[in-house]
Amino acid sequence: MPVTNNDFSQVMFDRHSVRRFDPSVTIPRAELQAMIASATTAPSACNLQSWHFVVIDTPEAKAKFKQAAMAFNYPQVDTASAIVFIAGDTHSHLVYRDVWQKVYEAGKISKEKLDQIFNTFLPLYEHAGRDFLTLDATIDGAMVGMQLLLVARAHGYEANPFSGYDFKTVLPAVGLDPARFVPVMAIAIGRPAADVPVLKTQRYDSQTLTEFL
Amino acid sequence: MPVTNNDFSQVMFDRHSVRRFDPSVTIPRAELQAMIASATTAPSACNLQSWHFVVIDTPEAKAKFKQAAMAFNYPQVDTASAIVFIAGDTHSHLVYRDVWQKVYEAGKISKEKLDQIFNTFLPLYEHAGRDFLTLDATIDGAMVGMQLLLVARAHGYEANPFSGYDFKTVLPAVGLDPARFVPVMAIAIGRPAADVPVLKTQRYDSQTLTEFL
Repeated sequence: MPVTNNDFSQVMFDRHSVRRFDPSVTIPRAELQAMIASATTAPSACNLQSWHFVVIDTPEAKAKFKQAAMAFNYPQVDTASAIVFIAGDTHSHLVYRDVWQKVYEAGKISKEKLDQIFNTFLPLYEHAGRDFLTLDATIDGAMVGMQLLLVARAHGYEANPFSGYDFKTVLPAVGLDPARFVPVMAIAIGRPAADVPVLKTQRYDSQTLTEFL
Repeated sequence: MPVTNNDFSQVMFDRHSVRRFDPSVTIPRAELQAMIASATTAPSACNLQSWHFVVIDTPEAKAKFKQAAMAFNYPQVDTASAIVFIAGDTHSHLVYRDVWQKVYEAGKISKEKLDQIFNTFLPLYEHAGRDFLTLDATIDGAMVGMQLLLVARAHGYEANPFSGYDFKTVLPAVGLDPARFVPVMAIAIGRPAADVPVLKTQRYDSQTLTEFL
């Protein structure tokens, strides 16, 4: 249940996608919730935390999710202990005033900073179109997803992020309102199947992707 | 230059955004490049690695970047040792066949898997519209950005991700082609200014953001 591997380099640099798991492994819901809580230490735009999680960890839930998942992802859906579907919440700014008012009341920011947030940042969201809100929530969701991939490893599991599902039907399939949420990614978590070969994919030499302005 | 803090829990759970840095600190370019390389162990959709980095670490480069940055971000731009601007590359799939052919030739995937990639995944990108490619590259860029925030801490620095810049002018300002790239986030890295108060923002109780399907 706690972090069992606290070696940062091992957790991050030895991570690779695992797509076939030992189906006999169960992860307690309290541990799944704890891993999600840990992942939400991720930063988010204006601390809006525009992320939302649907945990799929029963045969019935997997059957619902598979209505939208692409067939080539069935093996990992079938064998993972749990799939955490991450959605972006385009309505997160509707509680914005309340969130920052509390930060102010707790004495963590000045009145000047509070006014700046209410007068500068808040209107950006209140006047934003769906595209902006989608991108913003997608970035938040991807960052929390990256943390969840690492936290899973720190807990002794392996994981794989995937978006091989029908973007139009996946939200209703997992019970979320498409008018409010956007799909970001699904993360399958479990222990690797005993016979699964490790696929360490290559990365480009980062120098070829970097410029010094 | 190497990882100086390898404690996973400390690196991830004690991370918070720092926006004012000690301007006397210089980070060697080799170390910046090493941190970027470490961050690119992040996963990406179909291993396309749709990320691109522009490092801003001189007064001249900062002046260019500030043409697009919003004024409330000037303090962190001015004081950070470096800003790493992360763009998403919507053309990353143009080298797709080459990338996976090499993985196949290295004996890491079967011919069957290679055919699946070429016949199933590749057409998704080749026939995709700009919106799909933007979202896909944005997710890749956000995940690598999250890893960079953690790697910076492991190297003994602090960081802050921000997108307070003009989305239309920031790409030309940093020398990137808007027809190809999309802005994802900027990450300011440095050592905190001595007198900067720590703002530990609150997170929602993750249970309120989680459903079990």
